[in-house]
Amino acid sequence: MTADEQPRARRRTHREARTTRSTAHHRQLRNPWGNATILSDDQIDHIHRNALVFLQEHGIAALLPEARTLFASVGATVDADSNLVRVPVEATEALLATAPRSFSIHTRNPDRVVHSGGNHLVAVPVAGPPYAYDRDRGRRTGTIEAYNDFAKLTQRVDVLHSVTGTVEPQDVPLQFRHLHTSWASLVHTDKVPFFYSRGRGQVADALEMVRIANGVTPEQFVERAYTYTNINTNSPKQLDIPMSMGIIDAARAGQPCIMTPFTLAGAMAPVSLAGALQLQHIEAVAAIALSQIVRPGAPVVYGAFTSNVDMRSGAPAFGTPEAVKAAIASGQLARHIGVPWRSQGSSSSNVEDAQGATETFASLLGCLLGGANWVIHAAGWQEGGLVASYEKFVLDVEMLQIIAESMQPIDMGDAELALDAIAEVPPGGHFFGTAHTLERFETAFHEPAVFTRMNIGQWIEAGSEDAATRANRTWKHWLAEHVDPPIDDAVRAELAEFVARRTAEGGAPPES
Amino acid sequence: MTADEQPRARRRTHREARTTRSTAHHRQLRNPWGNATILSDDQIDHIHRNALVFLQEHGIAALLPEARTLFASVGATVDADSNLVRVPVEATEALLATAPRSFSIHTRNPDRVVHSGGNHLVAVPVAGPPYAYDRDRGRRTGTIEAYNDFAKLTQRVDVLHSVTGTVEPQDVPLQFRHLHTSWASLVHTDKVPFFYSRGRGQVADALEMVRIANGVTPEQFVERAYTYTNINTNSPKQLDIPMSMGIIDAARAGQPCIMTPFTLAGAMAPVSLAGALQLQHIEAVAAIALSQIVRPGAPVVYGAFTSNVDMRSGAPAFGTPEAVKAAIASGQLARHIGVPWRSQGSSSSNVEDAQGATETFASLLGCLLGGANWVIHAAGWQEGGLVASYEKFVLDVEMLQIIAESMQPIDMGDAELALDAIAEVPPGGHFFGTAHTLERFETAFHEPAVFTRMNIGQWIEAGSEDAATRANRTWKHWLAEHVDPPIDDAVRAELAEFVARRTAEGGAPPES
Repeated sequence: MTADEQPRARRRTHREARTTRSTAHHRQLRNPWGNATILSDDQIDHIHRNALVFLQEHGIAALLPEARTLFASVGATVDADSNLVRVPVEATEALLATAPRSFSIHTRNPDRVVHSGGNHLVAVPVAGPPYAYDRDRGRRTGTIEAYNDFAKLTQRVDVLHSVTGTVEPQDVPLQFRHLHTSWASLVHTDKVPFFYSRGRGQVADALEMVRIANGVTPEQFVERAYTYTNINTNSPKQLDIPMSMGIIDAARAGQPCIMTPFTLAGAMAPVSLAGALQLQHIEAVAAIALSQIVRPGAPVVYGAFTSNVDMRSGAPAFGTPEAVKAAIASGQLARHIGVPWRSQGSSSSNVEDAQGATETFASLLGCLLGGANWVIHAAGWQEGGLVASYEKFVLDVEMLQIIAESMQPIDMGDAELALDAIAEVPPGGHFFGTAHTLERFETAFHEPAVFTRMNIGQWIEAGSEDAATRANRTWKHWLAEHVDPPIDDAVRAELAEFVARRTAEGGAPPES
Repeated sequence: MTADEQPRARRRTHREARTTRSTAHHRQLRNPWGNATILSDDQIDHIHRNALVFLQEHGIAALLPEARTLFASVGATVDADSNLVRVPVEATEALLATAPRSFSIHTRNPDRVVHSGGNHLVAVPVAGPPYAYDRDRGRRTGTIEAYNDFAKLTQRVDVLHSVTGTVEPQDVPLQFRHLHTSWASLVHTDKVPFFYSRGRGQVADALEMVRIANGVTPEQFVERAYTYTNINTNSPKQLDIPMSMGIIDAARAGQPCIMTPFTLAGAMAPVSLAGALQLQHIEAVAAIALSQIVRPGAPVVYGAFTSNVDMRSGAPAFGTPEAVKAAIASGQLARHIGVPWRSQGSSSSNVEDAQGATETFASLLGCLLGGANWVIHAAGWQEGGLVASYEKFVLDVEMLQIIAESMQPIDMGDAELALDAIAEVPPGGHFFGTAHTLERFETAFHEPAVFTRMNIGQWIEAGSEDAATRANRTWKHWLAEHVDPPIDDAVRAELAEFVARRTAEGGAPPES
């Protein structure tokens, strides 16, 4: 039990005081199912060779002059008019070879270390919606209060392993926003924090706050990962200025960068799934290559966002079979390069209904079968990513906990095989009262947070509530019980001082 | 396109008249992901050896005298007081060896043949609830009208491969009920029908109706499978009279029998998952052995229903992590014996909400990872199996279709890789208007039946409907469009005459 759980324990309700299973074993998840394939080795190699040749012959646009200079330093030709950089096949291959197969991200609570690679599975909440939503207050512009709430909810559950930029706090001016989100991540949680790549000044501030929180020197900081970012290419075939800065600055600071092409088939990517994957691979390879020019061995993650649009409306569609297939193929492509990879939970539904749950689970199916190391947007994503939903967050956590428990081994000891109990109970009898049952029943099974097994009579008497209605109470209960995790007083003071100073200095505007 | 779809085509609505993908490729599903393991080979062998030894030393109760006589014929000892039969290890092993690894079930529409075994996946709707439910009429006692409705809905969708006893038509007297359900299955659908094992007379009638519908002689009928049944053991360790009759009569008629121990951990089975699996295996092995005494080579399916009860209330719990783990282990146990196996979709939720969808998908995850050949209750199961829900049926079909599409290969032809289109579109541009997109967009992606990608404004304007509300319209639309599939006039007349004659003769009461 970590220190942050102790205050909670003191306030346990009657129901919670009953024996329940700990979920501490969710803090490190290993996915036993992640080696599915949908393409042959030859097909994977074909996509990869195509990407290398495409980058050499057609190139990718790099809008940041420094990025073009870096590509030129490894032999790329740069077209001054179009900003296209064309990278020789051999150069790209050499760069990919230095990207690490795995890495770990550290934080002040050693129980919260994040392992990335192999069969490790890291789940993180929804990242980036402009709006927040809950059943009481409806859909509203994202605020720092909502951001704080999602940080606290993320801290609550073991099955989420890191913080994200859950919701955009639009009530905080842009030049100060990163200071407030970094503060929330570092003070309300002891999990690995996320930093946005929105220009040099913001990145420098965010990294400095993470360094302070971990109590390490600048020299120590760049030698070990303590935080991470995500960049999206401007598909097709373009790296914009802040994203390029993010790649470069993360690599320089030795912090992991997830490289995510924004390849929605039929819109920013070809309508054919093969074509969307081809474009995704071209762009991910280019972004990874840039990071390795900056710092060979810089930790990177292959980002795979490929889904499709709705063919009738052009709207993005999530949790689709195309996304599942793309995820499985993406896992193969990432393993071909030899880097960890990300996928996501997501849905198109505008409400926390059966569609939302089905689409999110379908997208997680792709993550699980494809062996995604990072599952972004794993809790709270709703309305195609436009809102961070409090109720969906709780419902998705329930889903993740079922999946996490399903990954655990079965205890096959002789006492668990229960042959004596099986012999003892008469044919057609039951096991309710056996010693074997009485010794184990209180902690035998995973217990849901929101899902109910009430029979129809009990359920009607209790108000015929659907799962989302119950989830509404659950997040309030979780927030009410939140206590900030331990942090050294001096560290907290130094963080506060840093925020105050940088605020007084005018913060850091985003760059574009 | 099969003949039964042609009348539908004539009545297509404007929306449906637009180009959509056919779902005919859902009629035969192969699961590419079904070889997950959760136990070691040694652990599987251990459970299997334990089962063989348990059946020899402790035995299983067989309430039907004929079953005891059959077991005695292979060397089992029979205890006259307890009805326990104790079967020598070698006898059980010899019997298991004759059970076939795979089989096919035929029907008058050759497109609807059901392959059972290998990586074939057969999905069938909910089977057996006493109640029907829909949003208009609420929860009500099952009727033959509801049974007919579910037969027609099952016929509608390619992703459901066979008929079941979807809902119990309690408005038809017991002695006539099998005649009505068989009629509905054989006339409203051309899919493989199910027969209930409720005593000799009913089984004989049902088999005769299937024989008539397929236009084969009695001699031909017993040489090929045309229908199937499911029996549940009375866990723990008991085979009752109608279930034993079902095993014996199905084997004699050469028709497949799914042998499903009713092992809910903590109730009819040990509270430990290992113990529940141990009991499941003992009972499934005994039931399969009985079938092979009757007819070596009789087609059988290893039934795996193991889930757990809620530890607070004793209520059955479905879609649990324990059920997922049990399903993966059950797949290993069935493959160890070398027979096809069944699992199921299921949930505890009382309403078609996020809980229902999550639990059903979790149970399907177990089916998929464990390689279940038969997925029973795949559509419409609600309220822990007490109701067959029209809306849940539609929502589950949507889920199954996403899964079925996810199993399809990716077209990796050069034109699909779209390198020319990728080169043609400028950096940061889009693919909406490219020739590559225009040639493909109408059928590029799977199109949902109920799920929506409307943005929030459109969705609110359309009434803020959740998926279940839309599903309510969908099943009505599907029922309105139903046309019985072709059947030879003489065959239909013979079936009608049989029902009339057996009704006049008083039908056949169930046995117990």
